[in-house]
Amino acid sequence: MKVWLIGAGPGDPELITRKAWRLLSQAEVILHDALMDVEGMKMANLNAKWVEVGKRNDQPSVEQAFICRALVGYAKQGLNVVRLKGGDPSIFGRAAEEIRACRENGIDIEIVPGVTAACSAAADLQTSLTLRGVSRSVAFVTPRVGRRETDNDQQWLRCALVAETVVLYMAGTQAKEVGTLLIEGGRHPDTPVCVVESASRSGARLKLKLADIAQNGLEHYAGPVSLLVGEALGLAKVQSESESQSDPFCANAPLDKAITQAIAFG
Amino acid sequence: MKVWLIGAGPGDPELITRKAWRLLSQAEVILHDALMDVEGMKMANLNAKWVEVGKRNDQPSVEQAFICRALVGYAKQGLNVVRLKGGDPSIFGRAAEEIRACRENGIDIEIVPGVTAACSAAADLQTSLTLRGVSRSVAFVTPRVGRRETDNDQQWLRCALVAETVVLYMAGTQAKEVGTLLIEGGRHPDTPVCVVESASRSGARLKLKLADIAQNGLEHYAGPVSLLVGEALGLAKVQSESESQSDPFCANAPLDKAITQAIAFG
Repeated sequence: MKVWLIGAGPGDPELITRKAWRLLSQAEVILHDALMDVEGMKMANLNAKWVEVGKRNDQPSVEQAFICRALVGYAKQGLNVVRLKGGDPSIFGRAAEEIRACRENGIDIEIVPGVTAACSAAADLQTSLTLRGVSRSVAFVTPRVGRRETDNDQQWLRCALVAETVVLYMAGTQAKEVGTLLIEGGRHPDTPVCVVESASRSGARLKLKLADIAQNGLEHYAGPVSLLVGEALGLAKVQSESESQSDPFCANAPLDKAITQAIAFG
Repeated sequence: MKVWLIGAGPGDPELITRKAWRLLSQAEVILHDALMDVEGMKMANLNAKWVEVGKRNDQPSVEQAFICRALVGYAKQGLNVVRLKGGDPSIFGRAAEEIRACRENGIDIEIVPGVTAACSAAADLQTSLTLRGVSRSVAFVTPRVGRRETDNDQQWLRCALVAETVVLYMAGTQAKEVGTLLIEGGRHPDTPVCVVESASRSGARLKLKLADIAQNGLEHYAGPVSLLVGEALGLAKVQSESESQSDPFCANAPLDKAITQAIAFG
């Protein structure tokens, strides 16, 4: 008995790994998240039983305990079970509960890593998250608390204030509050911020300043939103329809000071 | 003219994305890093010109300026050029210089994200880097400074002290110093630490405590080493030959307090 916990990557079915695709093709049951191109993923295996167990923000969603019971139940039937999780299983993927459920029931696990949203967002923006001489630290944090969690823990904020580059996961609806907290905590209001909706797929790509986020928040987006903050984002290039309103990097524009500094380290 | 900057993933050729593999198969010239299974990657395209431009720690390595000139030069010859970088291009990948060189020469760029070493190491360890109720922040940092960089910047350390989970890239040779700095900075000597050499491939997998690292450092490993630090690593399972000497998680062992707490949030 074995369960594969597989990172599906950020959404584009071509950004799944070759190993994940092979394991999908061999699976009998696939329990999958909601925030991905499921139709595209199904091309890996049209004969498997595909079961959606996605959690959606502010919508009815599947209880984690149900997912764990289903994983164990299918595996005990002797079926070849894949748990297909958006992004990478180790980053805000609730993998721990599923790993524990399998271990407690004597079911072997193999984890297949995937491309996490931050890396995909950086690729969409044509930027790096680390930058020589500018950023030797990048943190992924979320201000979102789960149900039954009390939010007396502000460690995510302390980390976001100290890391040179910060990527906030699941921060779309709290963007205004997050921007305000970061400025109050000492980050400069002019710090570059990028907004990436549905990384690797079509969605908003904005380049702003922290003060803009603190003042206006973000409108509601249909897809999941990553918020990228830090001087390294000065390199980011925005290619969406919002380009004309923002401040995209272009080849002839003067380089941001931070980027010039990074390049000087050559 | 276009250059593709492609994340090759952590090393296992099956952990490259489907998109990256397709683009490799269509390339005429591939400039690649050293720290990967190049023979395995070459199966994507045996006819392309494969050029190693890898940087190796403490060994003769290719200058970044040379890599940039080569990228631009091949692209200007009208060739289909791929720059294949270990891991994800946005995480300690020196992508900024290559992006800038292309932009300054009017060459289009597309970036294809990859699986970064931290996510692959977490998969190898069967753990999560974030954990409900335990870790809502994970930071990737490096203590390593490049040539011509002065190390008066301790921001990476401040970040490593505040993030709930920390993954240190390229920290193998500095492990003893890093462990000491983290304890002096306030992290508990009993904090779980995992060592992963050559994530996704064969190499050492150790589970220790921060005090062990500070006291003994790490022996020299042939492959690149990631150091993972934080309570979330309590979940980690070590499967290498070192298992008997360390303290692996097993199904019948009592769950660490942190994990029990995380699971209670269900």
